[in-house]
Amino acid sequence: MPTRYFEDFQVGDVINLGSTSASAEEIIAFAKQYDPQPFHVDPEQAKHSAFGTLVASGWHSSALFMRLLVDNLLNDTISMGSPGVDEVRWRRPVHPDERLQGRLTVLESTASKSRPNMGVIRSLCELVNQEGEIVMSLKGLHFFGRRPEFFQSRE
Amino acid sequence: MPTRYFEDFQVGDVINLGSTSASAEEIIAFAKQYDPQPFHVDPEQAKHSAFGTLVASGWHSSALFMRLLVDNLLNDTISMGSPGVDEVRWRRPVHPDERLQGRLTVLESTASKSRPNMGVIRSLCELVNQEGEIVMSLKGLHFFGRRPEFFQSRE
Repeated sequence: MPTRYFEDFQVGDVINLGSTSASAEEIIAFAKQYDPQPFHVDPEQAKHSAFGTLVASGWHSSALFMRLLVDNLLNDTISMGSPGVDEVRWRRPVHPDERLQGRLTVLESTASKSRPNMGVIRSLCELVNQEGEIVMSLKGLHFFGRRPEFFQSRE
Repeated sequence: MPTRYFEDFQVGDVINLGSTSASAEEIIAFAKQYDPQPFHVDPEQAKHSAFGTLVASGWHSSALFMRLLVDNLLNDTISMGSPGVDEVRWRRPVHPDERLQGRLTVLESTASKSRPNMGVIRSLCELVNQEGEIVMSLKGLHFFGRRPEFFQSRE
């Protein structure tokens, strides 16, 4: 796959980011370090929680999405970073070994006025489970480099 | 500290969540698993990046905040989870061993109409470095249990 520039993202594009999952051990290891609430770290206590079973930290599912995004998209782009994300929603519990598919839909594409070598893409990012249910969604903000010929022609 | 209920959060309250930091090894370990971009995983390549040095993944700084929130607040509340967060902003690079202070400011407090045993708190969550600069901010949404006497009196 050739490198993607800002100009290669079109509003409406849906990009498949492959799939991932987290084992019970990985869910517990993440949560012990970053989100040690009982239903994320202890299968026994999780039985008595509102979830009824061990579930991944919402931050863990967001991090799993990020890994798919880096491996299957960002590493083939001229990525210039991100100032953050909006509307992160942990819509459904994520269970051990659940197969999670990542996808990114391009919502907006805007050339930067202040930085002519850069464009801003806004996206809807989703993780979908095997039943087709959206378990996590967020609105992404991405800075991408512009095609050199375009950028240079504006100098 | 006694358990905090929904009623114990007042708009304008600023809650100190203590401090944390991540070593270069921890920054690299997180990023290798969840955000393997060169400036997060390789100090040599990071020198040639826009950052000029190794920096933590934004998701890592958000996760570091979450750990402070769980240890220093959520574990002393009747936490009923969170549907997500808004306006996550990675405002400044986070470097190895930087001391990061967490704080939460209560922005809004709303009793739930559909679930009388619950209230919703909206918050501004921030990580601040030793120079007093905000390195990460987000708007939190938190579900907390109501004081039993209040909840029961409405039955």
